[in-house]
Amino acid sequence: MQTLGHFINGQMLADDTRRQAIFNPATGEASRELVLASRETVEQAIAAAEAAFPAWRDTPPLKRARVMFRFKELLEQNADKIAALIGEEHGKISHDALGELQRGIENVEYACGAPELLKGEHSKNVGPNIDSWSEFQPLGVVAGITPFNFPVMVPLWMMPMALVCGNCFVLKPSERDPSSTLYIAQLLQEAGLPDGVLNLVNGDKEAVDTLLTDSRVKAVSFVGSTPIAEYIYATATANGKRCQALGGAKNHAIVMPDADMDNAVNQLLGAAFGSSGERCMALSVAVAVGDAAADSLIEKMTAAMAGLKVGACNDSSNDFGPVITRLHQEKVVGYINSAEAQGAKIVVDGRDVTVPGYENGFFVGGTLIDQVTPEMQSYQEEIFGPVLQVMRVNSMQEAMDLINAHEYGNGTCIFTRDGEAARYFSDNIQVGMVGINVPLPVPVAYHSFGGWKRSLFGDLHAYGPDAVRFYTKRKTITQRWPSAGVREGAQFAFPS
Amino acid sequence: MQTLGHFINGQMLADDTRRQAIFNPATGEASRELVLASRETVEQAIAAAEAAFPAWRDTPPLKRARVMFRFKELLEQNADKIAALIGEEHGKISHDALGELQRGIENVEYACGAPELLKGEHSKNVGPNIDSWSEFQPLGVVAGITPFNFPVMVPLWMMPMALVCGNCFVLKPSERDPSSTLYIAQLLQEAGLPDGVLNLVNGDKEAVDTLLTDSRVKAVSFVGSTPIAEYIYATATANGKRCQALGGAKNHAIVMPDADMDNAVNQLLGAAFGSSGERCMALSVAVAVGDAAADSLIEKMTAAMAGLKVGACNDSSNDFGPVITRLHQEKVVGYINSAEAQGAKIVVDGRDVTVPGYENGFFVGGTLIDQVTPEMQSYQEEIFGPVLQVMRVNSMQEAMDLINAHEYGNGTCIFTRDGEAARYFSDNIQVGMVGINVPLPVPVAYHSFGGWKRSLFGDLHAYGPDAVRFYTKRKTITQRWPSAGVREGAQFAFPS
Amino acid sequence: MQTLGHFINGQMLADDTRRQAIFNPATGEASRELVLASRETVEQAIAAAEAAFPAWRDTPPLKRARVMFRFKELLEQNADKIAALIGEEHGKISHDALGELQRGIENVEYACGAPELLKGEHSKNVGPNIDSWSEFQPLGVVAGITPFNFPVMVPLWMMPMALVCGNCFVLKPSERDPSSTLYIAQLLQEAGLPDGVLNLVNGDKEAVDTLLTDSRVKAVSFVGSTPIAEYIYATATANGKRCQALGGAKNHAIVMPDADMDNAVNQLLGAAFGSSGERCMALSVAVAVGDAAADSLIEKMTAAMAGLKVGACNDSSNDFGPVITRLHQEKVVGYINSAEAQGAKIVVDGRDVTVPGYENGFFVGGTLIDQVTPEMQSYQEEIFGPVLQVMRVNSMQEAMDLINAHEYGNGTCIFTRDGEAARYFSDNIQVGMVGINVPLPVPVAYHSFGGWKRSLFGDLHAYGPDAVRFYTKRKTITQRWPSAGVREGAQFAFPS
Amino acid sequence: MQTLGHFINGQMLADDTRRQAIFNPATGEASRELVLASRETVEQAIAAAEAAFPAWRDTPPLKRARVMFRFKELLEQNADKIAALIGEEHGKISHDALGELQRGIENVEYACGAPELLKGEHSKNVGPNIDSWSEFQPLGVVAGITPFNFPVMVPLWMMPMALVCGNCFVLKPSERDPSSTLYIAQLLQEAGLPDGVLNLVNGDKEAVDTLLTDSRVKAVSFVGSTPIAEYIYATATANGKRCQALGGAKNHAIVMPDADMDNAVNQLLGAAFGSSGERCMALSVAVAVGDAAADSLIEKMTAAMAGLKVGACNDSSNDFGPVITRLHQEKVVGYINSAEAQGAKIVVDGRDVTVPGYENGFFVGGTLIDQVTPEMQSYQEEIFGPVLQVMRVNSMQEAMDLINAHEYGNGTCIFTRDGEAARYFSDNIQVGMVGINVPLPVPVAYHSFGGWKRSLFGDLHAYGPDAVRFYTKRKTITQRWPSAGVREGAQFAFPS
Repeated sequence: MQTLGHFINGQMLADDTRRQAIFNPATGEASRELVLASRETVEQAIAAAEAAFPAWRDTPPLKRARVMFRFKELLEQNADKIAALIGEEHGKISHDALGELQRGIENVEYACGAPELLKGEHSKNVGPNIDSWSEFQPLGVVAGITPFNFPVMVPLWMMPMALVCGNCFVLKPSERDPSSTLYIAQLLQEAGLPDGVLNLVNGDKEAVDTLLTDSRVKAVSFVGSTPIAEYIYATATANGKRCQALGGAKNHAIVMPDADMDNAVNQLLGAAFGSSGERCMALSVAVAVGDAAADSLIEKMTAAMAGLKVGACNDSSNDFGPVITRLHQEKVVGYINSAEAQGAKIVVDGRDVTVPGYENGFFVGGTLIDQVTPEMQSYQEEIFGPVLQVMRVNSMQEAMDLINAHEYGNGTCIFTRDGEAARYFSDNIQVGMVGINVPLPVPVAYHSFGGWKRSLFGDLHAYGPDAVRFYTKRKTITQRWPSAGVREGAQFAFPS
Repeated sequence: MQTLGHFINGQMLADDTRRQAIFNPATGEASRELVLASRETVEQAIAAAEAAFPAWRDTPPLKRARVMFRFKELLEQNADKIAALIGEEHGKISHDALGELQRGIENVEYACGAPELLKGEHSKNVGPNIDSWSEFQPLGVVAGITPFNFPVMVPLWMMPMALVCGNCFVLKPSERDPSSTLYIAQLLQEAGLPDGVLNLVNGDKEAVDTLLTDSRVKAVSFVGSTPIAEYIYATATANGKRCQALGGAKNHAIVMPDADMDNAVNQLLGAAFGSSGERCMALSVAVAVGDAAADSLIEKMTAAMAGLKVGACNDSSNDFGPVITRLHQEKVVGYINSAEAQGAKIVVDGRDVTVPGYENGFFVGGTLIDQVTPEMQSYQEEIFGPVLQVMRVNSMQEAMDLINAHEYGNGTCIFTRDGEAARYFSDNIQVGMVGINVPLPVPVAYHSFGGWKRSLFGDLHAYGPDAVRFYTKRKTITQRWPSAGVREGAQFAFPS
Repeated sequence: MQTLGHFINGQMLADDTRRQAIFNPATGEASRELVLASRETVEQAIAAAEAAFPAWRDTPPLKRARVMFRFKELLEQNADKIAALIGEEHGKISHDALGELQRGIENVEYACGAPELLKGEHSKNVGPNIDSWSEFQPLGVVAGITPFNFPVMVPLWMMPMALVCGNCFVLKPSERDPSSTLYIAQLLQEAGLPDGVLNLVNGDKEAVDTLLTDSRVKAVSFVGSTPIAEYIYATATANGKRCQALGGAKNHAIVMPDADMDNAVNQLLGAAFGSSGERCMALSVAVAVGDAAADSLIEKMTAAMAGLKVGACNDSSNDFGPVITRLHQEKVVGYINSAEAQGAKIVVDGRDVTVPGYENGFFVGGTLIDQVTPEMQSYQEEIFGPVLQVMRVNSMQEAMDLINAHEYGNGTCIFTRDGEAARYFSDNIQVGMVGINVPLPVPVAYHSFGGWKRSLFGDLHAYGPDAVRFYTKRKTITQRWPSAGVREGAQFAFPS
Repeated sequence: MQTLGHFINGQMLADDTRRQAIFNPATGEASRELVLASRETVEQAIAAAEAAFPAWRDTPPLKRARVMFRFKELLEQNADKIAALIGEEHGKISHDALGELQRGIENVEYACGAPELLKGEHSKNVGPNIDSWSEFQPLGVVAGITPFNFPVMVPLWMMPMALVCGNCFVLKPSERDPSSTLYIAQLLQEAGLPDGVLNLVNGDKEAVDTLLTDSRVKAVSFVGSTPIAEYIYATATANGKRCQALGGAKNHAIVMPDADMDNAVNQLLGAAFGSSGERCMALSVAVAVGDAAADSLIEKMTAAMAGLKVGACNDSSNDFGPVITRLHQEKVVGYINSAEAQGAKIVVDGRDVTVPGYENGFFVGGTLIDQVTPEMQSYQEEIFGPVLQVMRVNSMQEAMDLINAHEYGNGTCIFTRDGEAARYFSDNIQVGMVGINVPLPVPVAYHSFGGWKRSLFGDLHAYGPDAVRFYTKRKTITQRWPSAGVREGAQFAFPS
């Protein structure tokens, strides 16, 4: 069985003694073994990053960006391999893995614009013959801690921008599916990154806590669940660092009576079940305004779900794959059970799905639940599985009140064709990423990603323009040259 | 004796039972009495702010900016009164108080540009017929906690920008000199701010802790000493808030052998002793490169200091006034004593200064200390008094190593006429605000203020462009209109 | 009778011999006499501006902006006087004149943000130890030539931004109604502008041609009719200047079947007849999609127009006043006659309106014409009078084709509640300023004003962000300091 | 002999009857034959561009940028072939041609950032519930006319930015060396550009005039000599187009007495003689302040020039090659003769250089002339050859007065180590591109290129941020949704 270690200072290392299995969620079997970093190993990675910093800091942004141009080429050339690595450990279908990679590449493309993005502000004559300007300088060593559900995309939200800003990086990817992450780290090195500028450590809480408390780490970016995000934010900041910690979600779609229902169903299908619902932007709740809309939605959705195909990653005719672990499979099924127990109606039931040839896989079938109400546990918590819950309300305001009362504020969407309804919704909804007839309103790479309320801790969002501010610190210089000595001296020295 | 209360929801309140005296530092006598807010009072202020938020949030930025246009007029019309209030409680001389006010007004002027500053980013066709844009929306209720040394300027670093961004504000000013702060809060109300949009509570740790832990407060801006800044940052963030906490400083000036020494001395004089050195940007250490430069600096500085005049705020011929409290006076003298005890040479001694007619005032005279070395306590800690310490080094690199090794990184300056030396300095010094022949490199209001290392906790600086990002959260909207119904329907409905 | 001269170098001058009468359009009588500048007088103004330039250029942007802060106060304090001066010579009603002034003041407010707006772009390390930055420097002497219909607002589109950018200005206002323009020029001087920075010359083609051909004038901003705009653009550019020339318009509103008709009629009423239709953004054509919409529009509009009141400027119950000259009155009536002759239906006829007490005034009443078709002269040309023409089409696409085929592309609007229709319209319409349910989509002062096609010649729009680029030229500086001499020399000079 | 035609709508065409020879300037022999486009052929290219516009305009900026990512790869892969094509027709040495290509590629890299660069400005609540935003939309068909001296770089200044902004392009390259230009046009097509989006026509004045007068061409970018630039600007604008026309130069370097003379000489050597001085940024005049500096400069430069090697493009040990034509060779020699006749001293004489094996080549050797004075013809006009003229002045101010009095204002440089002198120079010199110890201050691709005075006609510079504004027009949309119908209607429809 292959053993996966760390990538430190341009070298693969696997010295640590603690190990953990990596599973293929479609077969349910362990496929690789992961080395878990000790505090010393993480400190070694930090030290490598710190040593590489001075030279990387002084490398012109244009040169740093050119590493990203080459990285993009390598990612594109090795797309199939990356998708396969994702599929083997995460379980998502190849088309979905390629989609994930593509969204990641968009962040690499954005980072190619570093020379433009890093421009400072220059003010001539802030006073008589006094100039002042602000530069955006790198922080030093920064760290990223990333989740299992996007082993390639989320690291690519962080690393490219952190690196082109001039920082050195230590990445701790998910211990569930680190192979694809490790592979792209090596591609980045191959693209021309100097040794030590990027380091990857595999590990668990020991690695995380080392990153959070070591004073050489200046900033931490995290994506994961809200309880962990909260711990990361409190710990990193208590250690004097800047931190952005992205947490969980409960994304609602409002379906208005004037919505194009066929389109809405089609959009919801992918947004609810794609990647088994294991996306922080998955649309897991549909709020229908009026019973007519609700009935139509249930009817058309039920029909559409009949065509959903669940299975292993390597058959691209599948719509989605298994969930990440046996434990998580049981948790998702538990939420469906609880909804049923609390009075909801299971319209399409995915609890007992079996996939021929993959009988031990961690599969849950697409599930549709009607008549969900706010007090249900399945509504209050994040399921992170292929489950779409439908709620029924009497007005758009009631639907918005539901959303605004929820603890999360990551993404949301409205289906309507009415300009006024759309504007009222986007203006007044307490959610950071809003879709108008767009069910997964993930901002493109040149905007920034982030939720509101307990979906994000920190003041700057992930990737895009905010990443420049997060990964740099401002230095403001004020300059006056006091006397004309040399300039006028010349005149005295050489009289005509 | 006048009693100072709180300003909540457009009303003055003084219900709390705990009281504390305010002193005139020039006379050493208590002059007013301050009401200290209880938790309930602070919660009342927060509630008022929260109630005012929806309407203020929806007020167009142009209208919010117009309150600032009027506020600027009122501040200018009442400048003398404001300066007098500052002088009576802080002790700074009228010209210095007017200077403080002027720097504050510059922040009001900047806030007048809110409509421009709040522009979001709009992207057409992020996909076919899909548009996306980001808006910068206010946070809700935000709080400011401000220090005694700039009772008008530092609140004006925070309030104008927070307000024009659409937030409601709760300010807790210093308990040493709150009268001028309270007065400008009332002027802001007079300028047209609706009730509850700005609230001011006087108080101590109870008030501070309420602001830090109440979940309705979304962001905290703080300026003060580093230990408190660290506490504020850790506590506010542990409570899920965004926070920027500005702390202490130890600002060095490098005096190069090619510097125009007369100019350097003239600049240092104001930068070291102005406002009794009670500025986080005060230049408290001069590092002379080479003994020739050091000897010349000591000689010319000694001569210049002979003309320094210390006294009460109302005589504008004075250069600076008392320090803030008896306790602080003793602390400053203690630092001078310790330097002497550790081997430094007291060249000009301000320990025993007396001001006729103000024999009980908290005065310390301008003090010049030579041969200061890095291990001395007076070097390692922030004195915050009218004391200039001189260090001697053999090279510019040695001087820079000193600065980079210090825990603070607020401001610094180099005196030289050499372009290369200036650029090397500004590039490699680990300090956030850098002066080239500018001893107090406070960024102008349209740049942002912030130090590095333990001088600032957080990722965004105070005022200027960073304030827009700190006081707003990003909302990103992605929009697609799915079908041509109405547009093409018209064609079907009315055939030619 | 009062004689109006020029304002040059801070002085009023009236040396020229050629004179021309200024009329009160409500009475039809000459009320003042205008001095027409000779070439020599204009050259004197240019020379004054050129002499004032070096000092004004070197005045920090913050100080230049403060002149605008004071100018805003003076404009607000003297609003009634300004409105009266506009009314006496232009004829517009006081509420309309105050509205014009308010829109002008918004441009003054925007100019107060000059320090932010003039920031250059700074790039550290464009190569190893090489920095580069761009500054936006003033051009020198620039000129504005402005129309009669907004004697205060259009000069305020130009002067504030040109001045805060550091330029000196020569303004040639309309010879029909120069009094209010001259008055605000004097207020600007009172606000603290140094002599010569702003100069105003009254005159005709001789003045215009001098400004267009004198090599000391670096840029020309013009607003007027398209034939003149074309002449201005060709002549100014042939003389090597930069130029922006805004011309005529024919602004259409599409009324969709799903529009809120009462709202549409209410909006159209002001947009078509306000200021007697003498606005380049006046909505002069309503294109109804489908006969049902057209019939409803005609019916409701006819009813609404019954309440329109035409009269003199000083009665604020009037809705609009006379047109600017006898000649123009005849021209407007001529267009109505031609429409009738070419087969259109005059639904409401304003040709024979009389205003008691003002029988000699240049009045035209509100006129509504139905069944207008593209080949009619009244459709092809700009009427610039209180005339609303209605066209009937069968589809939204047909309406858009009409608009896109017209030679002008200034403003346009659609009335609908459908998001898809609005987006399709704004995306595909060949017009620079687009309203969605906003009949006069004049951009606010912090955006920029400009049409497409033959409505604007040049590449930068008026006021707002574009004004910064139009009134400045870019200077890019690349800097490297070649050797460490002084910095390292110090080390050699003082060995330890 | 190979015949070069046009590239229109994705096809090579060579139908025109007029032909002209292309020479190899190193051998003096005709090597290829060029087809000169008739008006009809140019109109065909414009028509192809116009037809391709709607689809290209609607292609998301991200997709347009990806063509540039691929284009960059192709340029890098084919660098040697491109350099060879440049060398054969222009004569520049391979390392110089590769340098030209590299600067061109930097513009392609900048264009890859189109999604960021094309962001519009979005303002929420310009009034109550009214939003407004500005989009930057493409112009349609735009044209570029480029010079012989950079057959690859200057087209790459224009095309990438014009194309990613959504325009279609017609390029007319120089008729002296079109092969490399034609080749990169084909690579751009290979990179994925749809047919017709880029078209290239070879030709002479007939082609140029067609582009200047055809109403379908919306904008013209030109680089060449000042008399032609002036003609282009006047003609294009008289035809209602926007235009930027870059002309000639006379770039001075000031050598201060404190300059590091070895460095200055080393820098001047490349800047004066590189590419045979046929660069609009070539440094052709050195102004020494004081005779000591002048004597030292002459002495060291004479020594350095002894090592200069002139010859054919394919020997990379050569420093520079021939000039472009026999006629131009004679013109350059004529300027040297005239300088001698007017009293200057020819220190190093390149008039009679011969290159073994290339006796018929158009070579001029490196020439150094001392004691040049302002009235000399060789000073007043642009030589565009490998000739460095030295002037002697007594003060820096005198040197600056010389520069400011010259009709051109393209580039300039100062050699000094004094911060004050550098700042005074960059502030007060009337030149658009300024170097501090940088002899060829060509702005990097993420700033913009342009001179002042008669070196540029128009208001926006070439490439970089200005290119976005030049190649787009602003559309400002103001939106209000008038009533809550659908949103509240839902409430009425479904009462609880």
